[in-house]
Amino acid sequence: MSVSAEASYQLRYGGQPVGEPSAEWTEVLAQQLAHRSVRRYRADDQVSDETLTALIAAAQSAPTSGNLQLWSVVAVRDDARRRRLAVLAGEQDFIAQAPLFLVWLADLARARQVTSSVGSPTAEGADFVEAALLSFIDTALAAQNASLAAESLGLGTVFVGAIRNNPLEVAAELGLPPNVFPVFGLTIGHPDELVETAVKPRLPQEAVLHREQYASEPPTAHLENYEDVLNGFYAAAGLPESWAQRVAHRFGSVAGLKGREHLRAALLDRGFQLR
Amino acid sequence: MSVSAEASYQLRYGGQPVGEPSAEWTEVLAQQLAHRSVRRYRADDQVSDETLTALIAAAQSAPTSGNLQLWSVVAVRDDARRRRLAVLAGEQDFIAQAPLFLVWLADLARARQVTSSVGSPTAEGADFVEAALLSFIDTALAAQNASLAAESLGLGTVFVGAIRNNPLEVAAELGLPPNVFPVFGLTIGHPDELVETAVKPRLPQEAVLHREQYASEPPTAHLENYEDVLNGFYAAAGLPESWAQRVAHRFGSVAGLKGREHLRAALLDRGFQLR
Repeated sequence: MSVSAEASYQLRYGGQPVGEPSAEWTEVLAQQLAHRSVRRYRADDQVSDETLTALIAAAQSAPTSGNLQLWSVVAVRDDARRRRLAVLAGEQDFIAQAPLFLVWLADLARARQVTSSVGSPTAEGADFVEAALLSFIDTALAAQNASLAAESLGLGTVFVGAIRNNPLEVAAELGLPPNVFPVFGLTIGHPDELVETAVKPRLPQEAVLHREQYASEPPTAHLENYEDVLNGFYAAAGLPESWAQRVAHRFGSVAGLKGREHLRAALLDRGFQLR
Repeated sequence: MSVSAEASYQLRYGGQPVGEPSAEWTEVLAQQLAHRSVRRYRADDQVSDETLTALIAAAQSAPTSGNLQLWSVVAVRDDARRRRLAVLAGEQDFIAQAPLFLVWLADLARARQVTSSVGSPTAEGADFVEAALLSFIDTALAAQNASLAAESLGLGTVFVGAIRNNPLEVAAELGLPPNVFPVFGLTIGHPDELVETAVKPRLPQEAVLHREQYASEPPTAHLENYEDVLNGFYAAAGLPESWAQRVAHRFGSVAGLKGREHLRAALLDRGFQLR
């Protein structure tokens, strides 16, 4: 990693205009901007326990609201279990192919147990949407640190939201107690260097960065430009065109949710009361 | 940054046992493990626009489910606005003192607009808990990258969940349209070197890392040990003791939520339908 700011911006924004590069540029920034999803892994190369320890230490070093640490993780190495999880997550074979699959869990069970251990008659606060949100945020902050740490070690990763297609079956497979919910998976392995991967261009900064107040007027010009930029990426990857169509496919109807329209019911089932 | 794995583990776990350090150790890991919350900033030192550009590029480089990019951010530099936000976030003066306050937003408005732009008559998928969760996760992954990037540039940060104490007032202050919700803030500035900060020890890895399946038996021994470790940290910082008491204070009753028991109502008010 010693890619310059200019080259990093060029790839990340696919040539869309960006502000002036910072005079200061760090290994961390270069690593972050080089992120790409990796779904093909070398079959012969395991992720060692020492590496797993480092990834979890990175995850635990992420901020956590009030030091509550409302997450846990299950490291799945067993072939048969990864195959079963791959099926539950929409037949995504790369989960079976990756040597290590981390399932990240929103965990309110530990906080409830600790609350009870000091004599509190209830843990009523954990029944609210706020508690669920705290645990989802803690989980995501931790997992992002783990993913970037893995990349810094030369490993490839991809997040798997599709474990939420069948969250109750995933919970059963992992033996999760009540008040522990599978949020997403993360496959980790040594990238198969025969399979090309690329940095996916994002929206221009002006689409996501507002100053002082949110600027509500629809920024259509830069969204149209982004369509063109991303169509170039899709064409190079042999994928069908249009970011807007993909967004519409996901949100235009309930069918785009692929079973995740039942997420609220699944959370309630597992003890997340969402008051 | 060139702290060794051994020294990093020692600080992060406060001497609790950890697995063998990895033979490989990276700048990214060292930076992640060195994370600490910084709430006091040098008054004379701004965060440049070039640095802000780098932080947003880092944030946008984080993974995002299906490239949906369901977040936005408002960069607040105005003194009076930061003072008002400090009041809304539970009188936390450091928000007014930090030169830059980033308010991270779950943004379903852009996806709804894009869905509509390609002729979809509805964006019904965005009405579900799944859509809200996607946007919260995207927001957290992005913000964690920005925070670590800032630290790599020598800046200090702290996440501010307390903007959720009064989310509707924060939304009004920032002019947020419907379907955009303030998730948390992040203060950024040059650390005041006269104020000491420290790495906060986390739970031992065995408390959060499970193998193949979740091990449900309450791991009381290492929780008790963690109390001792963290009490050492609190004593050094002049803070009252007990992690368990803090957890119980947050979740033992509705009062511990400090207004955030209304989060569900606030989300509904802002268009997050949580079906």
